[in-house]
Amino acid sequence: MSIKLYGFWRSIASFRVRVALKLKGLAFEETAIDILCGEQFKPGYDAVNPEHVVPTFVHDGYQLFQSMAIMEYLDDIKPAPRLLPEDAKERAYARSLALMTIADAHPLVVPRVRNHLAKAFGADTKAIENWGKHWTTEGLATYERLLGRRVPAPFALGAEPGLADICIAGQVVGAHFLKLELGAFPIVAGLAERCLKMPEFATSHPFEQPGYKTASVHH
Amino acid sequence: MSIKLYGFWRSIASFRVRVALKLKGLAFEETAIDILCGEQFKPGYDAVNPEHVVPTFVHDGYQLFQSMAIMEYLDDIKPAPRLLPEDAKERAYARSLALMTIADAHPLVVPRVRNHLAKAFGADTKAIENWGKHWTTEGLATYERLLGRRVPAPFALGAEPGLADICIAGQVVGAHFLKLELGAFPIVAGLAERCLKMPEFATSHPFEQPGYKTASVHH
Repeated sequence: MSIKLYGFWRSIASFRVRVALKLKGLAFEETAIDILCGEQFKPGYDAVNPEHVVPTFVHDGYQLFQSMAIMEYLDDIKPAPRLLPEDAKERAYARSLALMTIADAHPLVVPRVRNHLAKAFGADTKAIENWGKHWTTEGLATYERLLGRRVPAPFALGAEPGLADICIAGQVVGAHFLKLELGAFPIVAGLAERCLKMPEFATSHPFEQPGYKTASVHH
Repeated sequence: MSIKLYGFWRSIASFRVRVALKLKGLAFEETAIDILCGEQFKPGYDAVNPEHVVPTFVHDGYQLFQSMAIMEYLDDIKPAPRLLPEDAKERAYARSLALMTIADAHPLVVPRVRNHLAKAFGADTKAIENWGKHWTTEGLATYERLLGRRVPAPFALGAEPGLADICIAGQVVGAHFLKLELGAFPIVAGLAERCLKMPEFATSHPFEQPGYKTASVHH
């Protein structure tokens, strides 16, 4: 099968899909769409993804977007190793953990929102950074409260990392961008550390992508 | 089985779960948590939902949150009628449509975000309303572009309403709060109209909940 990913080094949703593909052992080719420069709005990319976001996943010509839909699809087409548990209650728990960042914390800090804060409220760089820190910290605190009620052993659902761990690690990657201290979130930090020691996670980290290195030279 | 829902009249995520339960023909008892007054942060509710959001779904003592995780769980425990298609590609398409509002448009307009805009940027009522209109309109426009490439027939995935339709109708419910015109989004408006003609959707609408009527008297 042929798998193509349109992603971006800084995109946490792209990080999630990259990790999922690597955990599944699926080879893919990634094309960078620079969402900081507005490449996602150009006509060529509109044909690929009318939502104008990354990532887009293309499997033998079938186009799919939204990181969670992509990860669920990967579990459907290649069940082993599983990203979601078989038991319905456990699967629901995994999804609810994933959605805490996908549906609550992360949507608030993406480029289009940061740009609109500047436009609508005249927010400067510092104010936008504080906005990002606020919501990223809220997300970490929520995960810490939740994982405190069912401590990772050693991953969120048990012995192997899956959908929930990918998403929690992604929330911690967001903290890396903002250089946030994780001292107040020891359970989350421990889980993310275990994840990021694995090559599937480590090599998917934004700072390990070719685009990051190019961006660092330019800025 | 016993099903309990902690919801709130104004919560679009609660609307989604209410519709899903009714489409499944599952009886449930709803308890209101007033998220405009901060009831979600009180210790009693923290024990139910440490994320401090609505809805929370409780099935024979099993607590679950995040509307999408709840709707997927309902499909697992009571497969008929299906909210998600059986085919993997179709299921992925349904999930990606659902996530466009769950993960992109809707998280930007919830009470905690509106409150933080006031706190962080001194945004007044009008500015916060404009923020809500901007993101709600963006969500509608995205759906219109997407559905234009595969026209609902008559629902997003075919003959029967499911997960995607519930979420698209929820985005339109958000437009109702803001009294937005839908003239620019005829495909979305048509789909939502078909949904909201069905009793499962109509009786789940925020304006049909007991809390709305009480709120209207007080404000």
